[in-house]
Amino acid sequence: MARLIRRRSGKAGLPPGTPVHVGERKVEELKITLIDYDEEQFQERPISAAEVRPFKETSTVTWINVDGVHDVATIAAIGDQFDLHPLVVEDLSSTGQRPKVEEYDEHLYVVLRMLTCSDESGHVEAEQVSILLARNVVLTFQERPGDVFDAVRDRIRTAKGRIRRMGPDYLVYSLIDAVVDNYFLVCEKLGECVEPLHEELVTAPTPASLHRVHELKGEVLNLRKVLWPLREVVSSLERSESQFFRRATRLYLRDVYDHTIQVIDTIETYRDVIAGMVDLYLSSVSNRMNEVMKVLTIIATLFIPLTFIAGVYGMNFRYMPELGWKAGYPAVLAVMAVVAGAMLLYFRKKGWL
Amino acid sequence: MARLIRRRSGKAGLPPGTPVHVGERKVEELKITLIDYDEEQFQERPISAAEVRPFKETSTVTWINVDGVHDVATIAAIGDQFDLHPLVVEDLSSTGQRPKVEEYDEHLYVVLRMLTCSDESGHVEAEQVSILLARNVVLTFQERPGDVFDAVRDRIRTAKGRIRRMGPDYLVYSLIDAVVDNYFLVCEKLGECVEPLHEELVTAPTPASLHRVHELKGEVLNLRKVLWPLREVVSSLERSESQFFRRATRLYLRDVYDHTIQVIDTIETYRDVIAGMVDLYLSSVSNRMNEVMKVLTIIATLFIPLTFIAGVYGMNFRYMPELGWKAGYPAVLAVMAVVAGAMLLYFRKKGWL
Amino acid sequence: MARLIRRRSGKAGLPPGTPVHVGERKVEELKITLIDYDEEQFQERPISAAEVRPFKETSTVTWINVDGVHDVATIAAIGDQFDLHPLVVEDLSSTGQRPKVEEYDEHLYVVLRMLTCSDESGHVEAEQVSILLARNVVLTFQERPGDVFDAVRDRIRTAKGRIRRMGPDYLVYSLIDAVVDNYFLVCEKLGECVEPLHEELVTAPTPASLHRVHELKGEVLNLRKVLWPLREVVSSLERSESQFFRRATRLYLRDVYDHTIQVIDTIETYRDVIAGMVDLYLSSVSNRMNEVMKVLTIIATLFIPLTFIAGVYGMNFRYMPELGWKAGYPAVLAVMAVVAGAMLLYFRKKGWL
Amino acid sequence: MARLIRRRSGKAGLPPGTPVHVGERKVEELKITLIDYDEEQFQERPISAAEVRPFKETSTVTWINVDGVHDVATIAAIGDQFDLHPLVVEDLSSTGQRPKVEEYDEHLYVVLRMLTCSDESGHVEAEQVSILLARNVVLTFQERPGDVFDAVRDRIRTAKGRIRRMGPDYLVYSLIDAVVDNYFLVCEKLGECVEPLHEELVTAPTPASLHRVHELKGEVLNLRKVLWPLREVVSSLERSESQFFRRATRLYLRDVYDHTIQVIDTIETYRDVIAGMVDLYLSSVSNRMNEVMKVLTIIATLFIPLTFIAGVYGMNFRYMPELGWKAGYPAVLAVMAVVAGAMLLYFRKKGWL
Amino acid sequence: MARLIRRRSGKAGLPPGTPVHVGERKVEELKITLIDYDEEQFQERPISAAEVRPFKETSTVTWINVDGVHDVATIAAIGDQFDLHPLVVEDLSSTGQRPKVEEYDEHLYVVLRMLTCSDESGHVEAEQVSILLARNVVLTFQERPGDVFDAVRDRIRTAKGRIRRMGPDYLVYSLIDAVVDNYFLVCEKLGECVEPLHEELVTAPTPASLHRVHELKGEVLNLRKVLWPLREVVSSLERSESQFFRRATRLYLRDVYDHTIQVIDTIETYRDVIAGMVDLYLSSVSNRMNEVMKVLTIIATLFIPLTFIAGVYGMNFRYMPELGWKAGYPAVLAVMAVVAGAMLLYFRKKGWL
Repeated sequence: MARLIRRRSGKAGLPPGTPVHVGERKVEELKITLIDYDEEQFQERPISAAEVRPFKETSTVTWINVDGVHDVATIAAIGDQFDLHPLVVEDLSSTGQRPKVEEYDEHLYVVLRMLTCSDESGHVEAEQVSILLARNVVLTFQERPGDVFDAVRDRIRTAKGRIRRMGPDYLVYSLIDAVVDNYFLVCEKLGECVEPLHEELVTAPTPASLHRVHELKGEVLNLRKVLWPLREVVSSLERSESQFFRRATRLYLRDVYDHTIQVIDTIETYRDVIAGMVDLYLSSVSNRMNEVMKVLTIIATLFIPLTFIAGVYGMNFRYMPELGWKAGYPAVLAVMAVVAGAMLLYFRKKGWL
Repeated sequence: MARLIRRRSGKAGLPPGTPVHVGERKVEELKITLIDYDEEQFQERPISAAEVRPFKETSTVTWINVDGVHDVATIAAIGDQFDLHPLVVEDLSSTGQRPKVEEYDEHLYVVLRMLTCSDESGHVEAEQVSILLARNVVLTFQERPGDVFDAVRDRIRTAKGRIRRMGPDYLVYSLIDAVVDNYFLVCEKLGECVEPLHEELVTAPTPASLHRVHELKGEVLNLRKVLWPLREVVSSLERSESQFFRRATRLYLRDVYDHTIQVIDTIETYRDVIAGMVDLYLSSVSNRMNEVMKVLTIIATLFIPLTFIAGVYGMNFRYMPELGWKAGYPAVLAVMAVVAGAMLLYFRKKGWL
Repeated sequence: MARLIRRRSGKAGLPPGTPVHVGERKVEELKITLIDYDEEQFQERPISAAEVRPFKETSTVTWINVDGVHDVATIAAIGDQFDLHPLVVEDLSSTGQRPKVEEYDEHLYVVLRMLTCSDESGHVEAEQVSILLARNVVLTFQERPGDVFDAVRDRIRTAKGRIRRMGPDYLVYSLIDAVVDNYFLVCEKLGECVEPLHEELVTAPTPASLHRVHELKGEVLNLRKVLWPLREVVSSLERSESQFFRRATRLYLRDVYDHTIQVIDTIETYRDVIAGMVDLYLSSVSNRMNEVMKVLTIIATLFIPLTFIAGVYGMNFRYMPELGWKAGYPAVLAVMAVVAGAMLLYFRKKGWL
Repeated sequence: MARLIRRRSGKAGLPPGTPVHVGERKVEELKITLIDYDEEQFQERPISAAEVRPFKETSTVTWINVDGVHDVATIAAIGDQFDLHPLVVEDLSSTGQRPKVEEYDEHLYVVLRMLTCSDESGHVEAEQVSILLARNVVLTFQERPGDVFDAVRDRIRTAKGRIRRMGPDYLVYSLIDAVVDNYFLVCEKLGECVEPLHEELVTAPTPASLHRVHELKGEVLNLRKVLWPLREVVSSLERSESQFFRRATRLYLRDVYDHTIQVIDTIETYRDVIAGMVDLYLSSVSNRMNEVMKVLTIIATLFIPLTFIAGVYGMNFRYMPELGWKAGYPAVLAVMAVVAGAMLLYFRKKGWL
Repeated sequence: MARLIRRRSGKAGLPPGTPVHVGERKVEELKITLIDYDEEQFQERPISAAEVRPFKETSTVTWINVDGVHDVATIAAIGDQFDLHPLVVEDLSSTGQRPKVEEYDEHLYVVLRMLTCSDESGHVEAEQVSILLARNVVLTFQERPGDVFDAVRDRIRTAKGRIRRMGPDYLVYSLIDAVVDNYFLVCEKLGECVEPLHEELVTAPTPASLHRVHELKGEVLNLRKVLWPLREVVSSLERSESQFFRRATRLYLRDVYDHTIQVIDTIETYRDVIAGMVDLYLSSVSNRMNEVMKVLTIIATLFIPLTFIAGVYGMNFRYMPELGWKAGYPAVLAVMAVVAGAMLLYFRKKGWL
């Protein structure tokens, strides 16, 4: 069983808005990358926390990505430059939050969970991604380098598609879309674990299979805990009449919403399938147990009457005429064979063999 | 177990609105058919994607049906001519979506799932049908030729009924109605699989029956996943105060809504019945197992005391008066018969035989 | 298992609003009866479909009751005279619908299900009753003669109570009330089946009892499917600000609503009781099985050690001093008795006997 | 199993608003008591139905309590004098209703259920209490004498507290509060039945315990059926912007609402505890059964190999060297002891003993 | 099983607003502490109930904390000085209430439950904390000394952070935040009980483990009963447009709301895990039982045919040629060994060993 809760104890008693890193430290050094573009121009380069300020005022779309959230001082410095609310700054470093959206006067704050699923075991890892939209600037904060945004970066670099023509809200949409699109991959990988397991349970169930079922069940439950709040996040972004999303972009959010529902549908199907698996395992195990007991009991039942007959002729009565017959012994053996045969026939007729 | 999710991996990383075919390719070549009518005139003919444009401007009702959605280029071309939103064009080729309705400024987009149920096995196949209503033009997109719309076509051809007098919204209603009406047929066929199976489970359950129950359960779960969103689609069409449906047509949509509810009722009944079937199977199997064990145990129980008696007179004590009696042997046999008879009587009285 | 769905296949492909009879034909000939009254006058007589028209214009309250809905031509003719919407005319003959209410500009359409419960088996039969309220005319359509409206007719005939003073909406209320009041009778009859069955399950359960439980469960599930939509029908009539019901009458509808809730409460109680019955049966059967196995196993356990002792003295060793003792045989028998007695005492002390 | 439904058959076919007594007749004669008070004056006396009229006009608060609702004529007479709606008059005598609140133009009608719980068996009896608030008059109708309102009467008599200063709405609140406060007592008594039963199930479960569990489960289900509608009644009184309750009194209703929620919480806890009890009983019974079977099977298993050894030396082969050995017999006995000891050790090591 | 309900019987019949202490008395003497501060000044000292009045008028923020609520006279005296509503005064001493929020004209009343979890057993104790906000005064009432507010006090004393600059609403927020933050600690301690238990159930389940599971299940159920109403309290504070909370503070309440949801998520995960534990225990116990029965039955099955063979050669027929053979005895022993070996091989091949 994985750890059920992240330790937040270090945090108890601190005033609200105090940024403290909660969770595992996943990267050595915090790294900031800048992408700045509009329809004509484009630049991409590493940047330090001290340099980000000026981009607040430009008319270009600026995407500042931060890998590593354990360095609370730097995070706080960035937050300061964009006048982020202290509670937002606190949340950035506090990993393990549910997907949520918070609207402030000057910025929109979205928390998502980016998933990765290891191929062979179906274990799903989650990483917290924070997206902040403040005027023309989009800030993203991730726990470690490596993400699902490369396709978005490529589209910006190559000036392909709509993304260079549209504003920062479309960039935010693209990032959310990339996260949700990735869920389909995670679902497929999970599906590839579910299907052979189902096969295994039908043909050769072992206690290890049951353990595996419980593991997968846990993964699916964790996914549900990410997906249902995500659905609310996307739905509230789509419907909100906020200043942050233009009407045209909101149509795209509806598309993301549809995708979220589709992923949820798939996950709920998995849940049903996995719930059925436990029943399948139990019924299969009990079936096998019953088979064993039945065969053993039939063997015993077959020999008990025969042993009785042998017992009768083992009695020491002086006057037992059969004992003196020449054909006594073979006759008794024949009787035994007939009795055994009759019982076997009866069992077969009854369908017990 | 059928595949749980359609592969969408080919799509990850593409910008939104990129039409990519998702799903199985079910037809060789895309085919477009035109039906154009008003109260006086009627024409029906194959048409190419390049020719559809002019019908956008005519005052007649135009129904353009496309069979085959894998040819994304042609689909995109048609979409272009009717100014469809890029996300709609993307969805047209992306099969495996949930029923949904989307309202745009210039068009209404409805996704339905058309079902076919093979007679003997009760397996239900689903095909995605997209219906677009743009002014006087109705576009339908199907995965393959062959559909449930022939009755609608006949009514248009023969100028029978209301359909030629009424507008494109009534045509859209007629198509939705045809799809929903077809669900009744699917339900009936499913019902024809459910009933004999119930019979079989009562009289002669085999592990194959249980497998069959699980299959049918899967079919019913899939149907539910189609039906519940459909209900929302129809209900939102009926209630929406949109420009696309006139008030008169909305009364007909209410009728479709009633039918949807009736199908859902039926499917929920099936679900209850099938859920009961698993219990029936388990209780029936455990009953039979209990019967077997009871009979076997009774046989053993009957002979064990008799064997004991035989064992007593098989002892080699020198001084056992009974052994010397002339009537010893038959007396013991009689005693054994009495004991066995008494036990059988007792078992019968107790109702164990 | 009763048939799960009414065949509607004959209907697929027909244009909406085509009246087709769906369901079993329950009466030979359609019969129309007229009751026409106001505070002063009253008439009651059979009438033909052609004569009903004039009553549309009179200021008296007119109740036209039609028994038999298979004769779609006559039904359509009546519908025509009162300008009923084609979908309503279609629904009149299409039995097996859920309770519903539909408001049109000129008329209100209510579908109810009238129940009858055969005394001995608790089987509940349902018949579709359609009630139409158009200005001063109330039309009712039933599947066959014989209904629960006789008390209403009597009250109209004898000018007893409010009914002659009040309008057609009060008549509609009275009819709905009569249908709902009848549900109490059905519930009582069902209760009279449930209680002895419960008794039977406690004292002497047989597989037939379980079958009976499943039958009753089916009846209760069917009733729920009638009652929950009915609740919505009555509630929407009560709350609607429509032209069809005057405020005074709406207070009476609230009363009907209360009754509906009471019936639902009762049915839900039955459901709980019946659900508990299955558990009761299973635990009772498994108890009995356990008893059987316990007794049989105890018998076997008792004799196996005794048989062992007998076996020991059946060994053929030359030097077994006990065999030569005079008191050997009785001593062994005594030992056996002691062993058997000790085991019985132990079993009794443990509470296994 | 208690009767599941009150007979209402006597009522079928009667026009609405006809007062008919439904339920058991619990008192011989109807008794009316008057309490009339304002801040300065107070009177309390028996009164006849004919005398109540004048109190309708006075400015004092008048509380008329009626014990016994079977005398429909008198009830109707009282109803007439206060212009009660016929449906209210009908409901007054029709016991067995769910808690509900109905607002009329001139009066407010509240139905509650007053509970009594017999100490030893935990059986809960319910009595219908109707409260009518019409201007300055509060009417209460109970099925029999004896109620939970004595504390309220005392407070009025002694002019203690707020009650004499405040209006009839505060009196209605006080009555509802008294009824709900009494539920805490009922809950406590029920709790005193639940806790020892739990103990009993852990230490010495018998089939009688299970029966008791089912009885208590029934009581709790009945309580829930009273409490959930009550919650809605109180909540709707508290929130309604009606003329009947002044703002100050509504704060007190919020307090009653809190109490109702607390009682519901307790009852839901009982439900969980009782649901767990059934599992506890079943697992306890199956545990004991398993213990029995295990011990019996171990005894059999122990002796079967020993019997086999004895059987070997009971064979009559002429050339069996062991039989001639002097130490043969004790050696075999020793072997048997060793085998038995080894098996016992093995069983103990495995934890089966 | 802990006591299921607090005794409120002493209270029945008293007029509403009568302060009566309900619950266990947890402290000898009531103690009042004053903290009074604004941005510049700060004082902290014990105070008597008679001295609190003047602070009502000052412009500083005043926090009066009361430890011990059994002394209803003093509580009432304090209530009087701040014009608290009688129902609030009653609730202060009536411990065991659900978390709730009540808004009055002049003050806001919040009831919370402060939890402590003993390390080793995971038993969670709850204490009622009442928070009253009246203009510039915050009153808190606790059942006993010792609380989770020390960090808040420290921040006020050291003038650290926002708290000295902001108003009494921020103080109320800080107190609620401290209570909710503490829930994370309780959850962690509970998690530390859940995880080893899970381990224990997999490796070595005993009936004591099951008992422990039921205990933890009870703890989790109790926590849920605290958390769900708390969620509503915080959510209603956050959304309410009341005068008591300024907009800036409301953002902080949203943060508390997020924390509440996180705690609920954790608790629901525990619930799932614990529910799975019961299944795990049962399946593990039944597995072990099955293993026992299988081994025992296999032993019996193995020896029964051998015993039969021995029985055959124990028969006393005069003409049994094998008995005279020299190699008869070893041959039979060999046959027995072969039979036993064959059966063992068969059992192993079948996977029964």
